[in-house]
Amino acid sequence: MKTLFQYNWQVRDDWFSWCEDVPEDELLKARTGGVGGILKTLFHIVDVEYSWIRLLQGKAEFDESFEGYNSLEKVRDLSRRFHSEVQPFVMTWTSEMEFKDFTFEDGDKLKHGEIMRHVIAHEIHHIGQLSVWAREIAREPVTANLIDRGLFN
Amino acid sequence: MKTLFQYNWQVRDDWFSWCEDVPEDELLKARTGGVGGILKTLFHIVDVEYSWIRLLQGKAEFDESFEGYNSLEKVRDLSRRFHSEVQPFVMTWTSEMEFKDFTFEDGDKLKHGEIMRHVIAHEIHHIGQLSVWAREIAREPVTANLIDRGLFN
Repeated sequence: MKTLFQYNWQVRDDWFSWCEDVPEDELLKARTGGVGGILKTLFHIVDVEYSWIRLLQGKAEFDESFEGYNSLEKVRDLSRRFHSEVQPFVMTWTSEMEFKDFTFEDGDKLKHGEIMRHVIAHEIHHIGQLSVWAREIAREPVTANLIDRGLFN
Repeated sequence: MKTLFQYNWQVRDDWFSWCEDVPEDELLKARTGGVGGILKTLFHIVDVEYSWIRLLQGKAEFDESFEGYNSLEKVRDLSRRFHSEVQPFVMTWTSEMEFKDFTFEDGDKLKHGEIMRHVIAHEIHHIGQLSVWAREIAREPVTANLIDRGLFN
């Protein structure tokens, strides 16, 4: 599971670098599908990962909106800031945590391991959307390959 | 890891059902991004999962092209047929297989666990692309949520 988080973090950073060469109006432009834009998607990925990890730690989730983070620099900074809290949680994950209950305010329960996999799939799914929008503006997307990233060395 | 394969299989089946209500010309239409079309993407997902699993088993990969499978029924049948071979391999996976070497013809090596995660991420990424194209034809995409699918019961 750690490998897939590390994959997501690498790919996300690759997309931030990719964004450097794209005019900001293209990054902010409203698009069809997903949450509706390139930077908005990166913000959403950062927000959702952090918020779930916060909930699993019994802390408050992040509840700010994209409007306060509508530039590459702001989203990237947010990602870095949250990463310093997310990364240690993921890297100290143990198999005993898999079936630990997470209880919502309404009493609904999910297992911690289920939520962690939801977070993984969430990011990969949204990155797939970015790859379509990249081609729409005639740019090559970041590779989605997991192999050849040195993740198993 | 099994959970993420099961997630992919459920989501793929949901997309096959989703396709039933979409005119075939929309399913076959050339689109921007990914492998360039809805059914072509589903074929590609099925092909890539099966081919890697075959390679890990020391068998020949699938090398037919989409042209022979250009209908919903054909791609769905292929997915079912391949699933009967993929599913037992995934469900009997053990942690000892993670760091087993896979050696390519040119001598390059990857770990089995790395390839399995590549296959997982590959499908989720391409499904994200389908979700954009669904919105382009004004249809609600299949949910990408991993939670609430009963995968951890």
